[in-house]
Amino acid sequence: MTDILDRLRSAVGDAHVLTADAEVAAFVVDWTGTYAGRALAVVRPGSTAEVADVVAACHEAGVAIVPQGGNTGLVGGGVPDPSGEEVVLSLGRMRSVRDVDPVAGTITVDAGVVLADLHTAAEAVDRLFPMSLGSEGSCTIGGNLATNAGGTAVLRYGMTRELVLGLEVVLPDGRVWDGLRGLRKDNTGYDLTQLFVGSEGTLGVITGAVLRLFPATPRHATAWVAVPSVDAAVSLLGLAQSRAGAHLSTFEIANRQAVDLVLAHLPGASDPISEPSDWYVLVELAGAATEDGLDDALEAILGDAVEAGLAADAAIAGSPAQRTALWALREGISEAQKVEGATLKHDVTLPIASLATWAADMVPVLEEVLPGIRPVTYGHVGDGNLHYNISAPVGGDDALLAAAPDLSRAIYDSVAAGRGSISAEHGLGRSKAVAGSSYKSGVEVDLMRALKHALDPRGLMNPGVLLP
Amino acid sequence: MTDILDRLRSAVGDAHVLTADAEVAAFVVDWTGTYAGRALAVVRPGSTAEVADVVAACHEAGVAIVPQGGNTGLVGGGVPDPSGEEVVLSLGRMRSVRDVDPVAGTITVDAGVVLADLHTAAEAVDRLFPMSLGSEGSCTIGGNLATNAGGTAVLRYGMTRELVLGLEVVLPDGRVWDGLRGLRKDNTGYDLTQLFVGSEGTLGVITGAVLRLFPATPRHATAWVAVPSVDAAVSLLGLAQSRAGAHLSTFEIANRQAVDLVLAHLPGASDPISEPSDWYVLVELAGAATEDGLDDALEAILGDAVEAGLAADAAIAGSPAQRTALWALREGISEAQKVEGATLKHDVTLPIASLATWAADMVPVLEEVLPGIRPVTYGHVGDGNLHYNISAPVGGDDALLAAAPDLSRAIYDSVAAGRGSISAEHGLGRSKAVAGSSYKSGVEVDLMRALKHALDPRGLMNPGVLLP
Repeated sequence: MTDILDRLRSAVGDAHVLTADAEVAAFVVDWTGTYAGRALAVVRPGSTAEVADVVAACHEAGVAIVPQGGNTGLVGGGVPDPSGEEVVLSLGRMRSVRDVDPVAGTITVDAGVVLADLHTAAEAVDRLFPMSLGSEGSCTIGGNLATNAGGTAVLRYGMTRELVLGLEVVLPDGRVWDGLRGLRKDNTGYDLTQLFVGSEGTLGVITGAVLRLFPATPRHATAWVAVPSVDAAVSLLGLAQSRAGAHLSTFEIANRQAVDLVLAHLPGASDPISEPSDWYVLVELAGAATEDGLDDALEAILGDAVEAGLAADAAIAGSPAQRTALWALREGISEAQKVEGATLKHDVTLPIASLATWAADMVPVLEEVLPGIRPVTYGHVGDGNLHYNISAPVGGDDALLAAAPDLSRAIYDSVAAGRGSISAEHGLGRSKAVAGSSYKSGVEVDLMRALKHALDPRGLMNPGVLLP
Repeated sequence: MTDILDRLRSAVGDAHVLTADAEVAAFVVDWTGTYAGRALAVVRPGSTAEVADVVAACHEAGVAIVPQGGNTGLVGGGVPDPSGEEVVLSLGRMRSVRDVDPVAGTITVDAGVVLADLHTAAEAVDRLFPMSLGSEGSCTIGGNLATNAGGTAVLRYGMTRELVLGLEVVLPDGRVWDGLRGLRKDNTGYDLTQLFVGSEGTLGVITGAVLRLFPATPRHATAWVAVPSVDAAVSLLGLAQSRAGAHLSTFEIANRQAVDLVLAHLPGASDPISEPSDWYVLVELAGAATEDGLDDALEAILGDAVEAGLAADAAIAGSPAQRTALWALREGISEAQKVEGATLKHDVTLPIASLATWAADMVPVLEEVLPGIRPVTYGHVGDGNLHYNISAPVGGDDALLAAAPDLSRAIYDSVAAGRGSISAEHGLGRSKAVAGSSYKSGVEVDLMRALKHALDPRGLMNPGVLLP
């Protein structure tokens, strides 16, 4: 053990190999607090060459590696197991923007660049990097790529995998694959880039990426809309899509329970619509600086929606501050739910057409498992993706934890029966590795294992994550 | 040999195992006429189960398989080698549209569906399947997926890989992977779909797919524009992008030599602009049925372009027939060049900013190798993708063939030096398998070989294609 630690210190410098409990504490527990592991060391390389050196050293010594970005994942995929034998490889010191090319529409970055800093770098050349997440102030692009992150801009711009053109990856044996190409078209072999995106650190360590930039959309029209049902929200989505076309950039849903938690726990949050509603939608149109009329278009859509019974009322942001306040109602849910107490998180996709029925049918099934549960339902209805989280019955945190396996199984069974996905955007990590495989065919699991074995035959890259 | 033929006949029926020379002729020579092989048999299964049976039989017997769609590929990837020992597996009988869901925006099809028929099926529900190729009347979606086809709609909608949500694949051992999911978001493991897209039949046989549909765009504004240079075309592209935004659906370039060939060889073709120009652009805006003003927008853009010196003149289509005529000038080039005589084809991408310089610098380099060569240059300038084809000096077909290796090497060296791609959209096939690997790093080739070995350890799927 001393040998490998010495080797790591010579790779990255003594100051960047952390072993003291106080120093490693922030790296071994995940954001949700559910996964608390231990680490042989936390290593913080400052360059691709140092990452390669660290990975080669671990490969030689047979030591497992857990790559980590901003440690904001929700499925325990970025923290070590309890053995104390794994090395956490944190990319947090690699935060250079290597190149920005607004004409080609590309930006080349280190894996450790924080998502919000990437936004800033794109804005500096009048471009947009669209990916937007609640954790964007601390998550890193390397983590976003490793987990194929989603967020609130998927409806218009797609998942992370649709935003990447090329990657630089340190392979499990320490060799570096330089796939940093910014070409839109390159048909010269297997798509290695897409193989690494979403592989959750189990096939190698992403150290750099070429990403797509889009025209800036500084104009916004934003509304918080009270809708009677999920069905109405889906119909309103169709109306907004046909009327606002490519300008529609956000279409998020939240139930009243979710909004109540935000109003209760987030300082300064206030309800923009006086009459309470079972469901709400956050809708936003975005356009170029020259594009006028977004507010008018949104008002017209919402007027027609009220007339058609798809909406009861709506609050349109009249200023940037009001826009921020409306967004806070949506972005604050996860944090507010954490304050409220124990939560059982699910991140499911279903075909959009069956979303409403599914959500309605689920409640009595879960009530039967644990009376008094509070479904806090929100998410990206435009993508068919709900964060179907269960808060404990009031005062019943322990009961929720005891019933968790049964509740999750009921939800996953129902999702699988509807040909949905049990992880829309969070990935499998440690928390869903077993479930992920159990809902797949044997052929599919075999294929995944064959790929894992081909790239990481010694099984040292993030073991126990993604594949059980 | 009799054994395997009997086994194949029992799998698909006697009528669908072709062995007579006259019957197999159309399946063993590629569209360009460059690759003429022989086959043990051409097998034409009618269902996924029959494909699986055929592949299992070949796997047991150790017989290699060449999957084939519409046999319109340009790099010899869909025809057998000269050994006479390979089985051609033609998907042409599998042409059912299995499901269309306009609300979810998905269509599920057999691999053998012809691209034009897929267009028709989408139009029937007022939707668009955007991929558009010169060969769309005969190419199949399975071939498009296996080669990650490009075409004239990439600028707006992306390559084939961006249009697919799920696949059904018969693996090299005959097992079927059912990945026919139509979800926009599904983060439950490695992206198997993207691994098979673009793998050119070397990892398995694609038998079905779930594809994305888009809102229909029946309104068009189309112009043929005389531009002074590639540089001017790139600037015009920037202007059109900032002014027409998401409506810009086509931006194609062609040099005068290319247009001359079309005018000489295609019946009914006529030059819409009287004064000859070195370069031309085909530009098209497309919108929904309710969207007026596309013609006005295009006219305004072109007016400004003429004023800024980016264009000399332009012809705007005033009717659907005129639109078809303008498109024929672009789509007819490949056919016209075939009639003219020997052609050396290249399909390269470069960063858009360096495209003009690259194209200009290339001519004297090639002239030195073979005086009198005629560069017929056209393609998808919006994607940085040129079809940089060389027609022989007049009467010099043999000289061109003799100089071909030197000419191609000069082009590929220059593309590699500019961090471009030697195959933007045609794939590697047989013709570029060696070159494809030689311009990649050893690490990248090793990665590709590891994947090939993991999925097809016996090397029976399209051997010699993609990887040498």
